[in-house]
Amino acid sequence: MKDARELTEKIGWEFDAIIAIARGGMSLAHLLGEYYDLRSVYTINTIGYDDTRKCDRVQVFNVPQLDDAKSVLVVDDIVDSGDTLIEVLAYLQAKYPHIEYKTASLFYKKSAKIAPTWYVKEADAWIDFFWSVDLKGKK
Amino acid sequence: MKDARELTEKIGWEFDAIIAIARGGMSLAHLLGEYYDLRSVYTINTIGYDDTRKCDRVQVFNVPQLDDAKSVLVVDDIVDSGDTLIEVLAYLQAKYPHIEYKTASLFYKKSAKIAPTWYVKEADAWIDFFWSVDLKGKK
Repeated sequence: MKDARELTEKIGWEFDAIIAIARGGMSLAHLLGEYYDLRSVYTINTIGYDDTRKCDRVQVFNVPQLDDAKSVLVVDDIVDSGDTLIEVLAYLQAKYPHIEYKTASLFYKKSAKIAPTWYVKEADAWIDFFWSVDLKGKK
Repeated sequence: MKDARELTEKIGWEFDAIIAIARGGMSLAHLLGEYYDLRSVYTINTIGYDDTRKCDRVQVFNVPQLDDAKSVLVVDDIVDSGDTLIEVLAYLQAKYPHIEYKTASLFYKKSAKIAPTWYVKEADAWIDFFWSVDLKGKK
């Protein structure tokens, strides 16, 4: 929560839609949508699969309708390898080339192939997000 | 968070996908997806508009691809008037009649036109969800 607030202090940009990369970006997108009072909050899905020739490949689906959007913030909880974010951006740019895209995440690994426009913390080890642990943890 | 955990204790049903009604259901869907270790977590969008003849109408868009799904849990933070949930279910049932749908929310107003299959609390007054207040509140 504190991290999400810190992210809003860094994002100096006006956008008319937010796209969460599911599942990881969904809570952050929800929070940001409430914070910016923006109802155009969407989700995009990806599936990673092994490509025997190269490394991991990512398939993108459930792409939201963005004909009226001009500037879109794509969010995820963490940019890890960067593969997912790269594929999502490539897909969106191909389908909606008229839109300007920027990206935001809570965490970012320096080893990733792409850096988000804004992020809060560099991540070295794996992070336990509250949405991953809280329901399963304490009873 | 506690409420979401309580919801998981009530949901005695296996489903193969979760659909969040945006924005309200997104954090809950994210949490449930993590809890049930289910990657098929999607979002559906709605816009409410005034219909001069009747009361409020709801337009549904960004409907996820559900061809392979058999049982889908539709979630929202609150079932208030019930208009949104009714329209979302009607849309999904028309487009994907082969799927069984059940619904879950954290809060439910008894005055709503439809009750979710599972909910945690009855809501009489307006509720401040943590995702609505936390970022704007304390600095």
